[in-house]
Amino acid sequence: MFSLRRLLVGEPLETERIATERLTIFKALAVFSSDALSSVAYATEEVLLVLVLAGPLALVYGLPVAFAIAALFFIVTFSYRQTVFAYPSGGGSYIVAKDNLGLIPGLTAGAALLIDYVMTVAVSVSSGIAAITSAVPVLHEHRVALGLLAVAILVIGNLRGVRESGNLFSLPTYFFIGSILFMNAVGLFKWITGGLATLPPPEFMSTETLAPLTLFLVLRAFAGGCAALTGVEAISNGIQAFFEPVSRNAARTLVWMAVIAVSMFLGISLLAHAIGVVPLATETVMSQIARGVLGRGILYYIVQTSTMLVLVLAANTSFADFPRLSSILGRDGFLPRQMANRGDRLVFSNGIVFLGVISGALIVLFQGKTHSLIPLYAVGVFLSFTLSQSGMVVHWWRLRHENKKWRVHAAVNGAGALVTAVTFAVIGLTKFARGAWIVLILIPVLVSVFLAIRRHYDMVAQDLRMDLDEKIKPVEHVVVVPIAGIHRAVAQTIAYARSLSDDIRAVHVSMSEEETAKIKAKWEKWDIGIPLEILPSPYRSLTAPLLRYINGLQKKEKTRFVTVIIAEFLPKHWWQRLLHNQSALWLRAMLQWRPNTVIVTVPFHLKH
Amino acid sequence: MFSLRRLLVGEPLETERIATERLTIFKALAVFSSDALSSVAYATEEVLLVLVLAGPLALVYGLPVAFAIAALFFIVTFSYRQTVFAYPSGGGSYIVAKDNLGLIPGLTAGAALLIDYVMTVAVSVSSGIAAITSAVPVLHEHRVALGLLAVAILVIGNLRGVRESGNLFSLPTYFFIGSILFMNAVGLFKWITGGLATLPPPEFMSTETLAPLTLFLVLRAFAGGCAALTGVEAISNGIQAFFEPVSRNAARTLVWMAVIAVSMFLGISLLAHAIGVVPLATETVMSQIARGVLGRGILYYIVQTSTMLVLVLAANTSFADFPRLSSILGRDGFLPRQMANRGDRLVFSNGIVFLGVISGALIVLFQGKTHSLIPLYAVGVFLSFTLSQSGMVVHWWRLRHENKKWRVHAAVNGAGALVTAVTFAVIGLTKFARGAWIVLILIPVLVSVFLAIRRHYDMVAQDLRMDLDEKIKPVEHVVVVPIAGIHRAVAQTIAYARSLSDDIRAVHVSMSEEETAKIKAKWEKWDIGIPLEILPSPYRSLTAPLLRYINGLQKKEKTRFVTVIIAEFLPKHWWQRLLHNQSALWLRAMLQWRPNTVIVTVPFHLKH
Repeated sequence: MFSLRRLLVGEPLETERIATERLTIFKALAVFSSDALSSVAYATEEVLLVLVLAGPLALVYGLPVAFAIAALFFIVTFSYRQTVFAYPSGGGSYIVAKDNLGLIPGLTAGAALLIDYVMTVAVSVSSGIAAITSAVPVLHEHRVALGLLAVAILVIGNLRGVRESGNLFSLPTYFFIGSILFMNAVGLFKWITGGLATLPPPEFMSTETLAPLTLFLVLRAFAGGCAALTGVEAISNGIQAFFEPVSRNAARTLVWMAVIAVSMFLGISLLAHAIGVVPLATETVMSQIARGVLGRGILYYIVQTSTMLVLVLAANTSFADFPRLSSILGRDGFLPRQMANRGDRLVFSNGIVFLGVISGALIVLFQGKTHSLIPLYAVGVFLSFTLSQSGMVVHWWRLRHENKKWRVHAAVNGAGALVTAVTFAVIGLTKFARGAWIVLILIPVLVSVFLAIRRHYDMVAQDLRMDLDEKIKPVEHVVVVPIAGIHRAVAQTIAYARSLSDDIRAVHVSMSEEETAKIKAKWEKWDIGIPLEILPSPYRSLTAPLLRYINGLQKKEKTRFVTVIIAEFLPKHWWQRLLHNQSALWLRAMLQWRPNTVIVTVPFHLKH
Repeated sequence: MFSLRRLLVGEPLETERIATERLTIFKALAVFSSDALSSVAYATEEVLLVLVLAGPLALVYGLPVAFAIAALFFIVTFSYRQTVFAYPSGGGSYIVAKDNLGLIPGLTAGAALLIDYVMTVAVSVSSGIAAITSAVPVLHEHRVALGLLAVAILVIGNLRGVRESGNLFSLPTYFFIGSILFMNAVGLFKWITGGLATLPPPEFMSTETLAPLTLFLVLRAFAGGCAALTGVEAISNGIQAFFEPVSRNAARTLVWMAVIAVSMFLGISLLAHAIGVVPLATETVMSQIARGVLGRGILYYIVQTSTMLVLVLAANTSFADFPRLSSILGRDGFLPRQMANRGDRLVFSNGIVFLGVISGALIVLFQGKTHSLIPLYAVGVFLSFTLSQSGMVVHWWRLRHENKKWRVHAAVNGAGALVTAVTFAVIGLTKFARGAWIVLILIPVLVSVFLAIRRHYDMVAQDLRMDLDEKIKPVEHVVVVPIAGIHRAVAQTIAYARSLSDDIRAVHVSMSEEETAKIKAKWEKWDIGIPLEILPSPYRSLTAPLLRYINGLQKKEKTRFVTVIIAEFLPKHWWQRLLHNQSALWLRAMLQWRPNTVIVTVPFHLKH
């Protein structure tokens, strides 16, 4: 087992080797933007999927919705641009909200972010697999298995520790940006010159009752498309990875990211409109556009491949973010402390494995369907946006005496907070029944769990607190050795017991009179100077008479330690263990909640 | 948990209360025959199910096959009648085969019987549920759940210990015998007087390609019907439950059982022929006959209910037989010794639970279909018949000087051995591909497992053997206390360690230099007279540096015992355990295979 682990994960690394790579703007854009950029692969589709409920003609509303989302994108970008300057050491939503709004908003943002990271993995992987299965339809029915495989690869890669991340990310990200912008350019050119053929309309189920085209439906379409904004905050978390001046470089990267993402998104939305794409179950909107613009040649496959790669990278960013946030929460005592332990390879292994298991479970549960996962996704993202931006408003207000321009800053973040809050409300309402309710319940539940964990740690610390002037009080001690037969293992156990204490009580729990008489006779013949006490057990229980006996020993003196020593047979092969009574395990389970009672098992290694 | 167990299973019973109820012939017939008698509920159906493959006209061969099975039944009965006299203390196949043919044949019979008992539960319960679902078709789709419920009730009932078994069994068994014989009588009367209407033929899939009516098909039908013989040997196992003269009373009961079973079976087969029953998937043959003879009134429901009850009783007999045989095999060292332990209520609890789990799994696996389970059933039964009867032949030959009539006896058992061996071969061949192969592989596998277990116990006994003149050699002993912080739990652990030994080594596994400096300073301030050794851990592992340290301690003197003492936090609620490092568990797992190394966990009870 251990060698398999070594093979997959690699040799352990020394603690000293923790280091942060510094990134140029070019590389940083690749590392931090894959999540935000890759969302364009499914955002347009989410908009159209809602509108098509009111019939193919309603798809025309896709364009105004896309422009509204683009506007939102820029507002949020400029809002975050300020965070980048205000928190040059990294301003994740948890930190900003906790610093400025207090503990509960901070933990709420933390809970929303943890959910967001899990969803990013599930959504990005599902969507990346959809890019592949659109191109190779026979793989469609294997999408869950392929998704799990992708998650497994991400877990193993991240347990190893992904070092040269700048180089690793640059190629696929720019490959993706390049191929999408190229597709958009070709498509728009053909459209303007009239060379763009519309796709043949698929057999549309005209018999289906259509939903009326209400404002609610349009808002729902908008809410779906807001998935495009996920990942915008990534740069504000990772400012320390930039070259000096960190804030300026980070801000510049942020704006570049917004420009690229929005132009890709608007281009795709325009082309979808131009070609007359209708969303399908087995082929993504992106794939239909690529097919319509580029034909089914090599260029089409390049677009699909680059889409899949960038989506897997986007999932990969969560494998850095989730463990980092949960280690911070663990260090602060809101999650189990183990989350803050660095594993063999200096990464937070517990968080990585946990993220892999949960997101894998989501992929199975939602059958790898991006569309079913989306309602759970954006709601958490926009809650953390809102909390983070509101925190920034408070931040500027606090600095009102030092910073003259505080009103302008506060206004920008206030605008950000306002639009993200409204969007959060829209998403929460329009997607409530489709899954958003799960997240809206889960967030307060997680916050209470965080608080309960912290309360426990605080109380334990109080229980354990000790004055260093207190010296150690000696304890009284009795050793009990249960005897089931007289043989080598018992001899070894008694030798061990003698090296511990002079007060040894050998007891035999008697289940059959015959057996007891035999053991008594042998014991007397052995004659080792310890009397053998017989504990009758009319109900054939080993533990009950022993428990009574220990009670008796501790009756007079409650603080007296009782140590029960038993031999544990360790056969050569694990299966042989089933052939021996697991009295040690059983006794331990029965006695572990008793104060001042210790079960010691002395291993006796069988040669066979 | 324990109170739930008490509620279900009852208060523990004292060992003294083991007692055997003596049974009159009337009650004994009920107790020991439910298995054999109840088989008639599905035996006819098994015959017809095979014949119908060659078309409805082939069903006419059902009658000669039934007569052949009836003849076989009597031959086996008379063969077993001799076992009853020769083994008045109980002659199960395992004992008879082991005594007369040797260890391997004995174990083979034992393995076949264990499989047989498991199959009896699965087949009888499935068939009993089929009786109910035939009467109430809406329950058909819930048959697996109903089957598992029946098994659960049997397990709980048997864990309680079914005491007044004579009375418990008499009512349903005679109720069944009465209702079937009544149905047969009415049916035959109506047939002779011409008042018996044939059932309307069901929509038969005439388009299906029919199998040719070969000798092989007829033999397969015969093999299926041989399920009627299962349970014939039950009386020979339980002779001690009869009043004196035990053998005479047992023999009389055996013959009565054969007469009743064969008349029920032949009656049902005749009526099936007369009415023109065609086997169906959702209604049993018995139910069709009852419907045809008695109409769909109260009498029909009485037949179905009594059938269900007797089948559940038949399953119940296995819950006595399986644990008893496995306790004998456990006592002889061929199965884990724990199988021979009597539980709280004086029953062999491990065997009961094991039987329940395995038979429940079979019901799920075969979807509660009696017909799919049958091929696995009869093959083991007939192997154990053959071995037992062959053993009896050897038995008479050994007695050839004492018993003048040995030739007659040997001839009867020889005839029994011959026909059961032929039947075994027929079943093995005709049902091989349908599942009998599983049993034919499983039996030798089980025998090798028995032998491997026995070999292990023999070797362990050899390892443990000790001369009582050998006195105990004193052992050298070092106590190691790993220190992760300085607090109350550590103080308690050191107090405990001091009461054990004067040679205490406090060690700190250093994962971070900061942390270590703090602990060192605190330790010096505490000043308890024990030096603190620092073990560097560049790879952040707790166990590796500790293991190295222990290696160092044992280098000079390999027999020196090293005891590692660590505090184990026991919080108030189980879930809080997840919030503490399970170092104790981890260390135990890593060090348990090391000789002369003991891990002691001193419980520290947290107040919160």
